[in-house]
Amino acid sequence: MRTNGVGGQSISYSASPQILAGGSAVGPKEGEGPLGKYFDITKDDALMGLKSWEQAETQFLLEAMEAALSNDNSKIDDMDFLLAGDLLNQLIAANYAAEKASVPYFGLYGACSTFAEALILGAVLVDGGFADKVLAASSSHFDTAERQYRYPTEFGGQRPPTAQWTVTGAGAVIVGDPPSSGGSSGPSLTIGTIGKVIDMGVKDSTNMGGAMAPAAADTIQAHLEDTGRGADYYDLILTGDLGRSGSELLIKLSADNNIDLSKNHADCGLMIFDSEQDAHSGGSGAGCSAIVTASKVLQDMASGEYGKVLLVATGALFSPTSTQQGESIPCIAHAIALENSD
Amino acid sequence: MRTNGVGGQSISYSASPQILAGGSAVGPKEGEGPLGKYFDITKDDALMGLKSWEQAETQFLLEAMEAALSNDNSKIDDMDFLLAGDLLNQLIAANYAAEKASVPYFGLYGACSTFAEALILGAVLVDGGFADKVLAASSSHFDTAERQYRYPTEFGGQRPPTAQWTVTGAGAVIVGDPPSSGGSSGPSLTIGTIGKVIDMGVKDSTNMGGAMAPAAADTIQAHLEDTGRGADYYDLILTGDLGRSGSELLIKLSADNNIDLSKNHADCGLMIFDSEQDAHSGGSGAGCSAIVTASKVLQDMASGEYGKVLLVATGALFSPTSTQQGESIPCIAHAIALENSD
Repeated sequence: MRTNGVGGQSISYSASPQILAGGSAVGPKEGEGPLGKYFDITKDDALMGLKSWEQAETQFLLEAMEAALSNDNSKIDDMDFLLAGDLLNQLIAANYAAEKASVPYFGLYGACSTFAEALILGAVLVDGGFADKVLAASSSHFDTAERQYRYPTEFGGQRPPTAQWTVTGAGAVIVGDPPSSGGSSGPSLTIGTIGKVIDMGVKDSTNMGGAMAPAAADTIQAHLEDTGRGADYYDLILTGDLGRSGSELLIKLSADNNIDLSKNHADCGLMIFDSEQDAHSGGSGAGCSAIVTASKVLQDMASGEYGKVLLVATGALFSPTSTQQGESIPCIAHAIALENSD
Repeated sequence: MRTNGVGGQSISYSASPQILAGGSAVGPKEGEGPLGKYFDITKDDALMGLKSWEQAETQFLLEAMEAALSNDNSKIDDMDFLLAGDLLNQLIAANYAAEKASVPYFGLYGACSTFAEALILGAVLVDGGFADKVLAASSSHFDTAERQYRYPTEFGGQRPPTAQWTVTGAGAVIVGDPPSSGGSSGPSLTIGTIGKVIDMGVKDSTNMGGAMAPAAADTIQAHLEDTGRGADYYDLILTGDLGRSGSELLIKLSADNNIDLSKNHADCGLMIFDSEQDAHSGGSGAGCSAIVTASKVLQDMASGEYGKVLLVATGALFSPTSTQQGESIPCIAHAIALENSD
């Protein structure tokens, strides 16, 4: 029976599972960006000396998971489950990471919304009494994503201004019960809002922000309606990777819904690179919201700069096959509220 | 806190969520097979008059969902969430089905184990009080899978005896609380066991059964150890799609673990086609265990032929990219117990 719902698309967590620790591992471009100082691990080689970009993506995921475990003073065997995914065909980065970590594994796919999906379901497992601690993680890699969705990077294709730059890196967090000692801990996960798939007919895989913005607007509206909260309840409403053009569209669409996001909206994709890094409309990828949340967001919440954050990770649910077949891009956004106790 | 665990990789459901109804939609070859009479919908055209095999797979998924809803006398708006996935790159069959159904959606990927993953997490959502009713569904399609993983069917490639035939079809079930009226209902979902990724180094994508059998053996062993049950506790231990060669290997590997599966093991992939249907080692695909469970298993449990069934759906977590790069095939198996009350 739905006792932990607040209605509609949203669920509430009665025991307030917390983010106990986060870990992030990023590539050189991300390390050189404005958030560089927040990351646990920055590699100077996006290939990490391995044979393929795909193997490197798996390694980023493993190192982010290890960083989260280290920050929690725990071991992989303390984790009941891993919930993870990435952008690749059949989630091979996450699958190989799960194999190497040897932990019971739920593979999730929500494109760039995967990290929020993992947080929502991870918190469900902890709050429902099915787990003590879980790892929620996701990754992306510029070169694996370009090879898969657009052109191999060796091709040197021109990128339009709406194109985004897929983040190379992975983020992982540990979700668990509040420490019984009452000691220091991270923000509580209080409410999750599960997105519907929204498709406005965009077919341009170099304009993901424009495709995804309507899904973000829809989920934010559902979250606020379900909870009775206003947008100003949150210190920060943080979208995953709408980029410049998508963020502008989200603010406009939300204004049409009588929701004012002009004061407290930020986008992980716009935070991660600066304008001189040639990332066009901003960063993107399943790693984008993961590395920002697992680093800067957690640190800013620990310092008290932010007390209440709504993470709204967006995903473009297309595939190389659907692009070739001329289908439009279905999109989704999942939201989860991170709140410090007052 | 882990109050609903029975230890190890397994979780137990304290409120015993039930499968309230199932629905199945299959292609012509599946309809002509030994289980034909059990399915809700059989199409005489695997393309369903649409433009692409991929569009047809989405349609199979939608029709299976509609059949389950019809069998439950409910509507899509009565479902809190859809948990679904398929074998395609980025889950496009499930994504487009979720878009058309307009229901909050969790995309899951576990290859051919996806249906069990959806059942486990769907039951978690219901048992934990996060949902009244959810739809758990998965699909596959022979032509979409061949195009994606091996050769386009037009190529006419020769298939070795270990090759399996991807099932064209989709299965969906509705998971919810037992009816408060105490009226008729389906089996309870009692215990789920979440698999680890197992990789024995198999690289042959035409021998999926052989690659997946060690994962099935591992999860069955974990389930029995976690629960203290013997294999003979179950009337039926039903693997998803090991096929002939994989089933033989599973029985041998389990015997090495001192687990005797020789008396009560069956495999959905071996049930779905007969030997004259040229399906070689048997059926496979994310639709395989879904259509068998949502039809014959539920009907045989309703009639009392089976009281306790352990569904063990196996998945080969490889991708076209990993095959091209010469990587081995990581595999997983998730198990969930379906039990009639005594």
